[in-house]
Amino acid sequence: MSTGTLNHSSLQAERGITAPKGFRAAGVRAGIKRTRQDLALIVSDVPAVAAGVFTTNTVQAAPVTVTRQQLGQNGRIRAIVVNSGNANACTGRQGYEDAVAMVDATARALRLDRSEVLVASTGVIGHFLPMDRVLVGIQHAAQSLDTEANLDAAMAIMTTDTFPKQTQCTLDVEGIPVTIGGMAKGSGMIAPNMATMLGFITTDAAIEQQTLQDLLRETVKVTFNHVVVDGDTSTNDMVLVLANGQSGAPMLKTGTDSYYRFATAFQQELTKLAKMIARDGEGATKFLEVTVLGASSDDDATKAARAICVSPLVKTAIYGEDPNWGRMLAALGNAKIAFDPNLVEISLNGLPILKKDFVVVNTNNGIGKVLSQMDITIAINLSKGQGTATFWTCDLTEQYITINAHYRT
Amino acid sequence: MSTGTLNHSSLQAERGITAPKGFRAAGVRAGIKRTRQDLALIVSDVPAVAAGVFTTNTVQAAPVTVTRQQLGQNGRIRAIVVNSGNANACTGRQGYEDAVAMVDATARALRLDRSEVLVASTGVIGHFLPMDRVLVGIQHAAQSLDTEANLDAAMAIMTTDTFPKQTQCTLDVEGIPVTIGGMAKGSGMIAPNMATMLGFITTDAAIEQQTLQDLLRETVKVTFNHVVVDGDTSTNDMVLVLANGQSGAPMLKTGTDSYYRFATAFQQELTKLAKMIARDGEGATKFLEVTVLGASSDDDATKAARAICVSPLVKTAIYGEDPNWGRMLAALGNAKIAFDPNLVEISLNGLPILKKDFVVVNTNNGIGKVLSQMDITIAINLSKGQGTATFWTCDLTEQYITINAHYRT
Repeated sequence: MSTGTLNHSSLQAERGITAPKGFRAAGVRAGIKRTRQDLALIVSDVPAVAAGVFTTNTVQAAPVTVTRQQLGQNGRIRAIVVNSGNANACTGRQGYEDAVAMVDATARALRLDRSEVLVASTGVIGHFLPMDRVLVGIQHAAQSLDTEANLDAAMAIMTTDTFPKQTQCTLDVEGIPVTIGGMAKGSGMIAPNMATMLGFITTDAAIEQQTLQDLLRETVKVTFNHVVVDGDTSTNDMVLVLANGQSGAPMLKTGTDSYYRFATAFQQELTKLAKMIARDGEGATKFLEVTVLGASSDDDATKAARAICVSPLVKTAIYGEDPNWGRMLAALGNAKIAFDPNLVEISLNGLPILKKDFVVVNTNNGIGKVLSQMDITIAINLSKGQGTATFWTCDLTEQYITINAHYRT
Repeated sequence: MSTGTLNHSSLQAERGITAPKGFRAAGVRAGIKRTRQDLALIVSDVPAVAAGVFTTNTVQAAPVTVTRQQLGQNGRIRAIVVNSGNANACTGRQGYEDAVAMVDATARALRLDRSEVLVASTGVIGHFLPMDRVLVGIQHAAQSLDTEANLDAAMAIMTTDTFPKQTQCTLDVEGIPVTIGGMAKGSGMIAPNMATMLGFITTDAAIEQQTLQDLLRETVKVTFNHVVVDGDTSTNDMVLVLANGQSGAPMLKTGTDSYYRFATAFQQELTKLAKMIARDGEGATKFLEVTVLGASSDDDATKAARAICVSPLVKTAIYGEDPNWGRMLAALGNAKIAFDPNLVEISLNGLPILKKDFVVVNTNNGIGKVLSQMDITIAINLSKGQGTATFWTCDLTEQYITINAHYRT
């Protein structure tokens, strides 16, 4: 394998979180949900360096509290236990004790120290976990660990997701292949106030804890946070990374070429998962990539792209295959950034629809074919500066309402 | 009539903007829309003191620019001309000239000075007004002015509204009856990035321009801005008031008892219009009043109430008649205010569903009947301070999507 090559073939993607050396997984049916797998384990054969980013919601679920504490006392982690079907959020002292009990049970089942286990949950808020089933499920999962059970694990963390989300790639670090794997579950919804987003990344790279934590924090800002709108997060959101060094490659040091390539691959993998989450938005029929160019700063471009992505009027227009640039301009006008509406240019899938001075082009010719596609790229040039940002979202359909009006326990 | 009595009977409400002395109105079909009235006039028999508040959107429609200029040069106004069906927004120099031409044509038709006319528009963005039809419509409207044409005017400013929105009340000012009338058109949508909200208030009170402007600005903050989410406004939003002094009552001076009662009545009338707008949200099946109590400050309460009202998950839950307090807590957690989730209490139409320490009550008994009602009051006590705020919104339904996916010219 040549230096710097990234592989993303679908065959390789089938290994997901177990693609890196020294990782096993399990996904079992514990009975928290009425059907399907609902409990997952991710286990490293050796203690792994761990890093995490967490929801900024004031209301934090019990597993978020417990996993933050675990990471704070020990940067070396062997296992992550995850359940779906119940978020263990707004459950008070009992919920905290239940999250701790999940950690303890996982440590016992795998003969680990309890400081080596992290926990995550997703599902309905305000209900206590059925701990008898959860504890039996953990036992079962511990016995099911396998280097090929990554799909079971990816299935077990789903809630209203319609497909499992996995990724992997391998890069070269000083002649030695280093692999990054990942899985995620979608926000049911990807506009403000979304359902839980969980992401789990594994790698056999060798990297120091602080370096990994910094990399994760910066990468999440421009990947998952560009789907799950920054600051509007659920009670349970978290992204965790385990790096176990089992590749045998040398330690990645910031500032080196190897680190730069690893960081690039890391961002690419998180971007892939982020896009899968957008594509699987509840009721979605179209995937939207929104890029804002020519803003005064990247920060302004981020505000502008977010304003487009949270606009129900833009998202319903795309659903209706209507090249409604007026709604886009109105949404930009609410982004609280400085720009001149007369200078805005907009194109859809590369076809210009609005030029400067509100000159409308192509909205009769060819745009119908563009908008009938499932993947829509909206490019907006503010013609003001050098700032850019890319966000991912989906259209807003009747099906989204139907799902959320009737989704309960 | 006794001092301080407010009358809101439906019979009286039928006079709307023509209820105060010295006001006439018209609503005609100019042919901007395919069907229905689409051009309105509001005319005061004598020069009226005028005040206005306008959209904070960076993209401002031509009529907003022109009306701001008119108000800036002359606090004395005789007429307002309004069209629906076309927002005259994102129309550049031509749009500006068209808005000025509407002012000029109205002044000519009514033999007024052009400085005495204001203009407003609502409808689709990015299309030039059909000025030939508009100018003929203005002529027609000028000939149709009548003290009983208030309903025609209220109909002529509607877009996706399903009913005209009018209000009126009379109060006593030192023994003389003073009347306030009003009409509004709804935001098609009442969550972020809404369609245009227009409000027009008339009164025969005598009041100075600066006093009226201050009153309007403060009152809009807690009425229309608690429906049309503050800062997320369309390109065309405006609220205008005309006070012509024709009641013969003495000048209202701030600090007096008469002023206080006038201000109270003014807020009450704007609140009634604001609630009508929420009730008529696109596709709405339920009207929601959200009150947050016990916040650290009114500002925090406002942020909290807004967070509840913009949450699609809360609004779809109410549509599904699901007492989903977990989604409400998650929405509060994104409001960027300090509170302790353990202390939150929530009730629906007076029936408690959540007590402190996440104690769930009544979600099995009686709540079904409560949630099947069309009017739902959500009261949330943060148990932290004395801050309060009330917002109005509606549920989010499949019909909202259908309307907005297919609404074009």
